[in-house]
Amino acid sequence: MCGRNPAHCAEYWKAVQELWLRLYLSNLVVIAAVNGSSPAGGCLIALTCDYRVLADNPKYLMGLNETLLGIVAPFWFKDTLVNTIGHRAAERALQLGLLFPPAEALQVGMVDKVVPEDQVQSTALSVMAQWLAIPDHARQLTKNMMRKATVDRLVKERDSDIKNFVSFISRDSIQKYLQMYLEKLKQKKG
Amino acid sequence: MCGRNPAHCAEYWKAVQELWLRLYLSNLVVIAAVNGSSPAGGCLIALTCDYRVLADNPKYLMGLNETLLGIVAPFWFKDTLVNTIGHRAAERALQLGLLFPPAEALQVGMVDKVVPEDQVQSTALSVMAQWLAIPDHARQLTKNMMRKATVDRLVKERDSDIKNFVSFISRDSIQKYLQMYLEKLKQKKG
Amino acid sequence: MCGRNPAHCAEYWKAVQELWLRLYLSNLVVIAAVNGSSPAGGCLIALTCDYRVLADNPKYLMGLNETLLGIVAPFWFKDTLVNTIGHRAAERALQLGLLFPPAEALQVGMVDKVVPEDQVQSTALSVMAQWLAIPDHARQLTKNMMRKATVDRLVKERDSDIKNFVSFISRDSIQKYLQMYLEKLKQKKG
Repeated sequence: MCGRNPAHCAEYWKAVQELWLRLYLSNLVVIAAVNGSSPAGGCLIALTCDYRVLADNPKYLMGLNETLLGIVAPFWFKDTLVNTIGHRAAERALQLGLLFPPAEALQVGMVDKVVPEDQVQSTALSVMAQWLAIPDHARQLTKNMMRKATVDRLVKERDSDIKNFVSFISRDSIQKYLQMYLEKLKQKKG
Repeated sequence: MCGRNPAHCAEYWKAVQELWLRLYLSNLVVIAAVNGSSPAGGCLIALTCDYRVLADNPKYLMGLNETLLGIVAPFWFKDTLVNTIGHRAAERALQLGLLFPPAEALQVGMVDKVVPEDQVQSTALSVMAQWLAIPDHARQLTKNMMRKATVDRLVKERDSDIKNFVSFISRDSIQKYLQMYLEKLKQKKG
Repeated sequence: MCGRNPAHCAEYWKAVQELWLRLYLSNLVVIAAVNGSSPAGGCLIALTCDYRVLADNPKYLMGLNETLLGIVAPFWFKDTLVNTIGHRAAERALQLGLLFPPAEALQVGMVDKVVPEDQVQSTALSVMAQWLAIPDHARQLTKNMMRKATVDRLVKERDSDIKNFVSFISRDSIQKYLQMYLEKLKQKKG
């Protein structure tokens, strides 16, 4: 992620914020075609899209699994998830760091459609065509109306959010957890 | 709707606000018995009711389809929809201007019950009886508690909401969209 | 509940608030194993837990049935329910004072799992083990992030909430309703 250099970590986190701010209020239609696992930040990016198509492969897991790494999803990850799957499902998913396989991701509302792996691209394209058929200025204003309040919260709290992240991530106990988690992943893959 | 006379448009929009404010916080039990299509304002009125029964006819479509007309549902339409079907479903429905046939309206939670066309009235009446059996003062206070915050938002913003509507609706590009949409409707019916 | 002595009622209500405040933000993992009916306050307590397992017995009813007693669930009961089952389902459940049997409680999201009566304990224990396997500090901070805003609302309004309760509960008309309701319950049981 960003190691133990606080300045490096602050830069990193600012960039993640920037990315989310741009994607979540993007005027473009963005359709996610997901052909692999999307934990943590990958899941967040998918959640900023207008529509999510996921390949039906039980190995493709999706979720904000921060607690499994001993860290905490920041409030704007949480807000994005609550906007997508509701408060209760988000509370359970975030506390347990749940990674959903396709069928469960669909049921909980984390994705909008699950299709065979070779149809992900074509499905995403036809969904895209449906969204692009809508008068563009009206669609953009509507998207903005739905998401503006969530974005404003982070805009107001960017500095304190960076401080929180940096101080949290540089704790010894957290670094230990992260290393343990990465070790486990390596062993699985190895 | 209200043509191109700004004063006329402002009066019109004020009346729509008034109607919603009264219906959404009405102390009466209001059950919607829907026997036809309810786009835009018709859908909004149904959403202010305590319970919605819809006739099972695939031609009866329901939804806030404003984007299809090149316009944008105001924030209090959006709030009413979010209160009914949740944030994610509302975001998709509003951006795409979705009009739901009965089975989908039921699934997304836009209506509470779908019944054969000749049972809409009797179903609505028996639902009404169930609601009227509740101690009335307690039911009214509970309804008020659930809806007051949503109403307060518009009460605070009535003037700017009227201004927004008038300036938006009188743009040339919007008028052109509206006329195109009305033309299409005429051709379909003709 | 607390009869007609205002000081007694105020003490009682303060204790209920205290209980909810502690449970809803508890740092512990709390799994509800429900082996009986849980109306009103019993339901509230179950809703503060992290996960709810209910015995599959159609006699076990669960819900915030305050309106049936002629009283109104306070806003923080309402907020807890909205956080669990969403705005629309909460509005209907609270207005009608619905008591859900297990299958419906599961469907609406009021409980997370329904199991045969003799498996409630073992299911709750295995769920507990799953939650305890999560790094504890990360889980606690996440729970706090999800629930803090709801708790803050009551903390800010504790005194006025007590006043409301005391003045409401001591009205003659309310006392009459409560007595009628208790009479009906006695007759059912007798």
